[in-house]
Amino acid sequence: MKAIVTVRLKPGVLDPQGKAIGHALEGLGFVGIEDVRVGKVIELELSETDEHKARDAAEKMARRLLANTVIEDFVITLR
Amino acid sequence: MKAIVTVRLKPGVLDPQGKAIGHALEGLGFVGIEDVRVGKVIELELSETDEHKARDAAEKMARRLLANTVIEDFVITLR
Repeated sequence: MKAIVTVRLKPGVLDPQGKAIGHALEGLGFVGIEDVRVGKVIELELSETDEHKARDAAEKMARRLLANTVIEDFVITLR
Repeated sequence: MKAIVTVRLKPGVLDPQGKAIGHALEGLGFVGIEDVRVGKVIELELSETDEHKARDAAEKMARRLLANTVIEDFVITLR
């Protein structure tokens, strides 16, 4: 089963990478960009076939390593 | 309008970052991890309100800067 962990900065946390991308896009002539925020998508191919167990394992992995839960939120999607 | 650009490595392209995360997770005692692949999620807050124009602008930004289309694919979602 595939577990997709999407990690984003919490609202209100400054996103320097997003700011840099925004400036770069404007430098390339793009207009109308009000804000840019960047996150990560981590796709975990798991041998687990039970949905609950897979979600539980992915959550533990996210809390332990994939997300810095002080400044980041994460969402888990299963496929 | 918000355009979400999800950028992933094309299938078959080696993902050293994913490999490193996989090894780290195994080092933490997690089992059953067959593969790990990492991508980016770029959220663009655009002043454009027309869906087609917003999608078109996001696509141009993705091709020009956000994705390396030689080794990466991207998907655009509007909200």
